[in-house]
Amino acid sequence: MKRYLIPIVLAAAFAGCKQQSAQPVGVLTEPTSASTNTPGREYPMINPDLTVEFQVQAPEAREVAVDICSKVYPMQREGDGPWTVTTDALEPGFHYYFLVVDGMRLSDPSSQLFFGCGLDASAIEIPEAGADFYLEKDVPRGEVRMQRYWSPSMNAWRTCYVYVPAEYDANPGKRYPVLYLQHGGGEDQTGWSRQGKADIILDNLLAARKAVPMLIVMDYGQAGDFAHILLEELIPMIDKTYRTQPDAAHRAMAGLSFGGGQSWSIGLKHPEVFSSIGVFSSGMFGGVGTGAYAPFSVESQLPELLADPAAFNKAHPVFYLSCGEGDPRIGHTRAAAEALKAAGATVQFKAWPGAHEWQPWRKSLHEFCQLIFR
Amino acid sequence: MKRYLIPIVLAAAFAGCKQQSAQPVGVLTEPTSASTNTPGREYPMINPDLTVEFQVQAPEAREVAVDICSKVYPMQREGDGPWTVTTDALEPGFHYYFLVVDGMRLSDPSSQLFFGCGLDASAIEIPEAGADFYLEKDVPRGEVRMQRYWSPSMNAWRTCYVYVPAEYDANPGKRYPVLYLQHGGGEDQTGWSRQGKADIILDNLLAARKAVPMLIVMDYGQAGDFAHILLEELIPMIDKTYRTQPDAAHRAMAGLSFGGGQSWSIGLKHPEVFSSIGVFSSGMFGGVGTGAYAPFSVESQLPELLADPAAFNKAHPVFYLSCGEGDPRIGHTRAAAEALKAAGATVQFKAWPGAHEWQPWRKSLHEFCQLIFR
Repeated sequence: MKRYLIPIVLAAAFAGCKQQSAQPVGVLTEPTSASTNTPGREYPMINPDLTVEFQVQAPEAREVAVDICSKVYPMQREGDGPWTVTTDALEPGFHYYFLVVDGMRLSDPSSQLFFGCGLDASAIEIPEAGADFYLEKDVPRGEVRMQRYWSPSMNAWRTCYVYVPAEYDANPGKRYPVLYLQHGGGEDQTGWSRQGKADIILDNLLAARKAVPMLIVMDYGQAGDFAHILLEELIPMIDKTYRTQPDAAHRAMAGLSFGGGQSWSIGLKHPEVFSSIGVFSSGMFGGVGTGAYAPFSVESQLPELLADPAAFNKAHPVFYLSCGEGDPRIGHTRAAAEALKAAGATVQFKAWPGAHEWQPWRKSLHEFCQLIFR
Repeated sequence: MKRYLIPIVLAAAFAGCKQQSAQPVGVLTEPTSASTNTPGREYPMINPDLTVEFQVQAPEAREVAVDICSKVYPMQREGDGPWTVTTDALEPGFHYYFLVVDGMRLSDPSSQLFFGCGLDASAIEIPEAGADFYLEKDVPRGEVRMQRYWSPSMNAWRTCYVYVPAEYDANPGKRYPVLYLQHGGGEDQTGWSRQGKADIILDNLLAARKAVPMLIVMDYGQAGDFAHILLEELIPMIDKTYRTQPDAAHRAMAGLSFGGGQSWSIGLKHPEVFSSIGVFSSGMFGGVGTGAYAPFSVESQLPELLADPAAFNKAHPVFYLSCGEGDPRIGHTRAAAEALKAAGATVQFKAWPGAHEWQPWRKSLHEFCQLIFR
């Protein structure tokens, strides 16, 4: 727990190209294969200025492009060589991308794939200078358990992911609080651990004694009547299968984007089940073609707060909103936080650098988990 | 444990197209979306005769084809419509496939992806009439735990998968035997649970009391000195982290193809560490451009058997070879089994229908796990 292995681990992760010498976390000194590449693939290659060079073998294609961070970069080639392009400098963090080959949008065989955008999508991890809270360190490691359970309402088996802290098996008499953590639209139960690195974030927090040991349950939220699944099927299964503290005081809910809306519409609306609530980068406050909740008003969306602010605040010891500063949702989220404060809520609001992407969500989880279950 | 939900579960899994009525396991009565499709995608669609219709949207492509089961099927289109093709009848089981778009071999956005062939690859699951041992049933469900550990020799964090039976947490005083189970070339530690359905197979066996409750450890075997990783890093970590029976009598090793060779070269060669050994569809006996072991001879590859057959058989209570009848490795594997028997080994050999694919490997695991730790 004292020895930090980050430089070594980074060097190993990026070893597809060349070995790197020890250096500050997240700072590249030479072109480096992305940690998200398929094992053994050299490209995409990240340059020290965070531009990225892509290479694609497509000898018979007429047009190839890379579609990343809302920009399409046409690729070039010389003779029969590979198609190549170097992007602008990219924001640190995790970005989905696609190849466009003769008009067809496809995943890149050179990238590991992550379920997002409704399918297994290519992505690239751009290191952030100084950010080590989601990197693997020499600390006790919890597990993510793939927990299958039968859903009567869906008439199907489901698989949720359950983060279990390293100490769990060694404390058979101890019970734990539970955070229910939801993915965004087009993602699934794998998102928070694979893209979000939730388990690594918690391992690091727990080793530093910055969070209360907790379970984190991640399930697929875009199927059927998810409120019913969550309240009537998932939570009872978790409380039966794991050593939980099965009451609202020890149950929190958070989510990103679509899942942030669910944290509000299910979590905040069931104070008998959940106490602390996190809403990360949700479109529910307006501004991006949102649904039923926009335009946001405390009167229409949270009359229980106006009725009794003290009771509301007592029921929700942590009420946390966040958004990326480059996310079109930022203005409405900030305004909603102000309106909630004006109505008497002890809401916490945080704006992070970045767009509607995983880097603000990782940071939101990192902060939220330090606040809850205290 | 009495109610079998297979017809219902199959109907749910294949619900992308149409609802199906209850019917015999693995028998389709109408065109049905594959269970391996990306959620919500209608195609590929399996017909009752096990031909498969593929559809691809690639408006600007000049040539599109499907490459599946060693055959390339050129796709056709009418006007600006989707590219389509219907394959020959496919063998039941799990088949990797690729799209070939203007000469570029790509994964299909309509398919969930599975790490195989060295990258995240498309695949299709063709049901087998009457085969339900790898289908989800209404039985107690174990977990697959993603267990991270530090590898000094690799100077990196690794993630192995650990199957833990449903009863494990409820029996804190009980210790368990461990099967170390290796994937094939171009696959990784996710293969046996995702493609192989190892956890479902064990859940079903344990519910029927046809196997001894055991842990199954699945790690990535194509990195560094895997014998060293397995013997000096992985096994000590597992014995420290889980309630194992940490001796050779309660440790088995098995693997498919490349991993079958490792079961021989590491497992069988370390009787002080492992007892029972399974070698599924390995090329090590010759016949398919094999490596150091071919041509196989007991004299050169297993002199310890010739030296003392009784001691060898006592050290390896189960010594199991298997191969698909349509696999080019079948002849040499059968001959090796005969030679081993002639040399006094109590080897068990099984030929399954099918090629060098997952269906024979699922069946091999299903049989092997019923034999070991008795």
